[in-house]
Amino acid sequence: MTSLQGNPVSNGIGVGPVIIYEPFSWETSQGEISPDETEDMVLRYQQAKQKAKKELERMIEAFSTTDPEKGKIFTAHLDVLFDEVMEEEILGLIQDDLTPPDRAVDEIYGAYIHLLEKTKDPLIRERAADLRDVRSRLLRCWAGKEEKNLSSLPKPVVVVAKDLFPSDTATLDREKVLAIVTEVGGATSHSAIIARSFEIPALLGVAGITERLQEDQTVIVDAVEGRLYCDPTPQEIEQYSRRREEYLLHMSQVKKYLNVEPVTPDGRRIEVELNIACATPQELAGAAYTDGVGLFRTEFLYMGRDRLPTEEEQFQVYRKVLEAFQGRPVTLRTLDIGGDKKLDCLALPKEENPFLGNRALRLCLSHPQMFKTQLRAALRASVYGNLWMMFPMVSSMEDIHQAKAAVQEAKNELEMEGIPYSEDMKLGVMIEIPAIALMADQIAKEVDFASIGSNDLCQYLTATDRMNPAVAEYYRSFHPAMFRLIGYAAQPFLSEGKEIGVCGEMGGDPLSAAVLIGLGITRLSMGASSVPHIKKLITGLSYERAKEIAQKVQHTALAQDVRRLLQEELQQLL
Amino acid sequence: MTSLQGNPVSNGIGVGPVIIYEPFSWETSQGEISPDETEDMVLRYQQAKQKAKKELERMIEAFSTTDPEKGKIFTAHLDVLFDEVMEEEILGLIQDDLTPPDRAVDEIYGAYIHLLEKTKDPLIRERAADLRDVRSRLLRCWAGKEEKNLSSLPKPVVVVAKDLFPSDTATLDREKVLAIVTEVGGATSHSAIIARSFEIPALLGVAGITERLQEDQTVIVDAVEGRLYCDPTPQEIEQYSRRREEYLLHMSQVKKYLNVEPVTPDGRRIEVELNIACATPQELAGAAYTDGVGLFRTEFLYMGRDRLPTEEEQFQVYRKVLEAFQGRPVTLRTLDIGGDKKLDCLALPKEENPFLGNRALRLCLSHPQMFKTQLRAALRASVYGNLWMMFPMVSSMEDIHQAKAAVQEAKNELEMEGIPYSEDMKLGVMIEIPAIALMADQIAKEVDFASIGSNDLCQYLTATDRMNPAVAEYYRSFHPAMFRLIGYAAQPFLSEGKEIGVCGEMGGDPLSAAVLIGLGITRLSMGASSVPHIKKLITGLSYERAKEIAQKVQHTALAQDVRRLLQEELQQLL
Repeated sequence: MTSLQGNPVSNGIGVGPVIIYEPFSWETSQGEISPDETEDMVLRYQQAKQKAKKELERMIEAFSTTDPEKGKIFTAHLDVLFDEVMEEEILGLIQDDLTPPDRAVDEIYGAYIHLLEKTKDPLIRERAADLRDVRSRLLRCWAGKEEKNLSSLPKPVVVVAKDLFPSDTATLDREKVLAIVTEVGGATSHSAIIARSFEIPALLGVAGITERLQEDQTVIVDAVEGRLYCDPTPQEIEQYSRRREEYLLHMSQVKKYLNVEPVTPDGRRIEVELNIACATPQELAGAAYTDGVGLFRTEFLYMGRDRLPTEEEQFQVYRKVLEAFQGRPVTLRTLDIGGDKKLDCLALPKEENPFLGNRALRLCLSHPQMFKTQLRAALRASVYGNLWMMFPMVSSMEDIHQAKAAVQEAKNELEMEGIPYSEDMKLGVMIEIPAIALMADQIAKEVDFASIGSNDLCQYLTATDRMNPAVAEYYRSFHPAMFRLIGYAAQPFLSEGKEIGVCGEMGGDPLSAAVLIGLGITRLSMGASSVPHIKKLITGLSYERAKEIAQKVQHTALAQDVRRLLQEELQQLL
Repeated sequence: MTSLQGNPVSNGIGVGPVIIYEPFSWETSQGEISPDETEDMVLRYQQAKQKAKKELERMIEAFSTTDPEKGKIFTAHLDVLFDEVMEEEILGLIQDDLTPPDRAVDEIYGAYIHLLEKTKDPLIRERAADLRDVRSRLLRCWAGKEEKNLSSLPKPVVVVAKDLFPSDTATLDREKVLAIVTEVGGATSHSAIIARSFEIPALLGVAGITERLQEDQTVIVDAVEGRLYCDPTPQEIEQYSRRREEYLLHMSQVKKYLNVEPVTPDGRRIEVELNIACATPQELAGAAYTDGVGLFRTEFLYMGRDRLPTEEEQFQVYRKVLEAFQGRPVTLRTLDIGGDKKLDCLALPKEENPFLGNRALRLCLSHPQMFKTQLRAALRASVYGNLWMMFPMVSSMEDIHQAKAAVQEAKNELEMEGIPYSEDMKLGVMIEIPAIALMADQIAKEVDFASIGSNDLCQYLTATDRMNPAVAEYYRSFHPAMFRLIGYAAQPFLSEGKEIGVCGEMGGDPLSAAVLIGLGITRLSMGASSVPHIKKLITGLSYERAKEIAQKVQHTALAQDVRRLLQEELQQLL
């Protein structure tokens, strides 16, 4: 049985048929068709249309019970597909101008998309996105390619891809994905974060795997041991299906900790909060067993769409989340775009080193109108709950002054317009750039709270791109310097009686969370799947012991020794 | 008078005609020539050859007095140009196969280059580089384009370019360059470093300037105030020529400090060392007025060539530098490639974030043979002087262990071969990644010395690509966190009685150097042009006062306030 190694970033076991995922892209035919081809071409065009229609109908059917709202989108797509005006123009191009059908479709749809995007009415502009979707579907059917859309999978599959981008995973059909295998990406990549949050077993960094596997071939993904088995025998499939059951059983036992109160044996209450990325009902259900939202990512509002979200749209979503958490803190991170995260609705220049470039707060400060729209939406929502607003990618006191000035401007506007906002909204910063961690004493006087973004902090601290497999070994999240710096940054906040939490991956990993607690951190934010694990840890680990562990870790020289030490010390609590 | 703003990274004033520099690249003609064109084509080919010949002869003549060694290279190129075998084959292609002459040249030269590169004899392989040069020259003459080679300029000019790469600047004809103006690049880019080391006024970050200026148009580059004047009147040219004289006079006064001993008024001796990049006679002349080499960049040995340098070649250069400095420390930095520095002789994959990627020590550890060749060459040279060897881009104790193991392996080999090396050679690390600065107490026990690379350190500390103009404002070299971290990292070295210096741009800037001295640093390395400025500072600034300044700086919140404070405090010493 051929077995390949990978990086198990989301634990679990998956067994099933492979789907090789790559987004569809097209090039249309050049030149003219010959006059005696036209009849045949029109026929083929109608066949492609029928194929697209069947796909849409299948999806409407599939969503009719599970998610009728999603179904409605596809019903609208059917209307587009059978739009008579476009149809006439497409046939005209084929029959009169001898344009190949695919180019005719591309041109006519393109013209209407262009037209719709120019209108002022946001509802009409929105329709351009539908036309884009239908065009892509129709051209794919024309090209005779099967649908590979992760939002509507025909059966349970193991998704194999070069990489998954946030736009691919935002609409992922989580029920049908048995496991994820990608060629690139590390433990803190988006694929990894999404996989963990959906509790889908995931193996990343399996080089060349999209070339190696065949569509529909059955594989075993062991994302506990970090191995992929390419051609298992029936016995092996049987054996791993059993292991999968055992694994799920162990997990269900840990899950019993989901609802316990996170207090250490010596009485220290730790706030266990949630990282949320899409504000879906599933995510908001986390309000039942957490102390709030430690990281509310707002990027999803901007992704996979052709125009920036309006103030009203954002306001509605922010309000929904605030209301769901009923007075518990909801820590909204302002737009964190750039770096590995791109937007369709905002053209950004290509940068040589995007992770060191114009991203997050920097980008917002250089796009003041976009920033203000978000700030106004958040301020308006603030009266519906306990909103904490925080800025990502802060590197200096200068940045904080600028961000605060932008908030003040938005407040002034709302006041003039007589629109209410909460005076109690807290303002804070992400600590993810080393320079700001080193200024924690000054920062603690300037803001209401801080949240340590351990993923980016580790990236900058070790000068290692966490998405680059060539340097994966240098991205050491257990680097003693990480714990030293976090300890250093936490101290002034604790002395000032201000909140400081951790919202990166470290907060959801019991090994590192133990050290964070020992460093005085009382606020940990994580994906839903980590909550029971962290609660189990907290109820078993005294604060005194955590402090001892933190001391040891800070005086260890090697990252690998830190990890080993933690595994030994915490064995019983995992 | 149209005036544009730029970043004055190397002070001075330059007035003169513009040359727009871009490296020549070609695409050869497709298809066949018609039989009746052949005669004309052969004639045009011969004309291009004559033009190339004249260029070469002009250069041989120009170098005959200044640098006959360089002249020899061009004599060899003449031989290539008139090689009879290649000539016959090229004419054959044109006349018999109706190949366009440029493609004929490209193909025949290409075939020989390929052949030469495959041989085992390094001297023959070396000749491939000559063939490449001649091919490029001949095709440029064929295309009717003038030579734009910065190594042999026809007259004094202002060089205007999108960007200058290390390979362009390595052979720069410094006597003929009045000033440098580029579209990209910040104060710590290579263009900037080279400009300062050659004392050429340089204005960087002037957007769109290559499109805006005409060849040969006269401009004024005021790289004191940071302005470029595009169409000056004769009066203005006159006025700026006067200012230039005044500026040069002030500089000549500062230069009187070149030979003073760098001791503070209260008796603290600071070691003033040199950064060297090419081991040219001019650079080595710095031995007369410095305490050694604080940073010996070895990249130039690998640049602008088709194969890696041999152990013997490297050994000869290292020995030359060690002998020139007669027992004073020569701090050799092992190969620091990757990031913004590429090599022709080593194919490296494109990375998304090269500054956070597989560069410097990481690259050497993943190319053990190349690394060992350099280590052996350095070890062999160590018996000719006082060699300190240091590793760039160290991020953990694990990295240090690996680097030391590689040195030990090279030592073992030399011992087995009976080749001597110095037992006293010191081993150190660059502190340029924040994680290692935070581990200084552990590191100080592990290595003999450390050198702070302030350029990269600032880049990672503030998460800002120093080459990206879109985020230039976030690269704050006067960030209080920089001084805090340097102070933190220096302390354990000072307590252990081990050397710690600074070899980035901060060491050569009097404003920051004052703070470094106050933080206890006694070793500053810099480009030759900074030496008199820094010596002037040292002889005027007591250690006690520097300590007070350093205290103030570390407790300032804003980078802009740090700069202002230093300008006020040190006004008399600049």
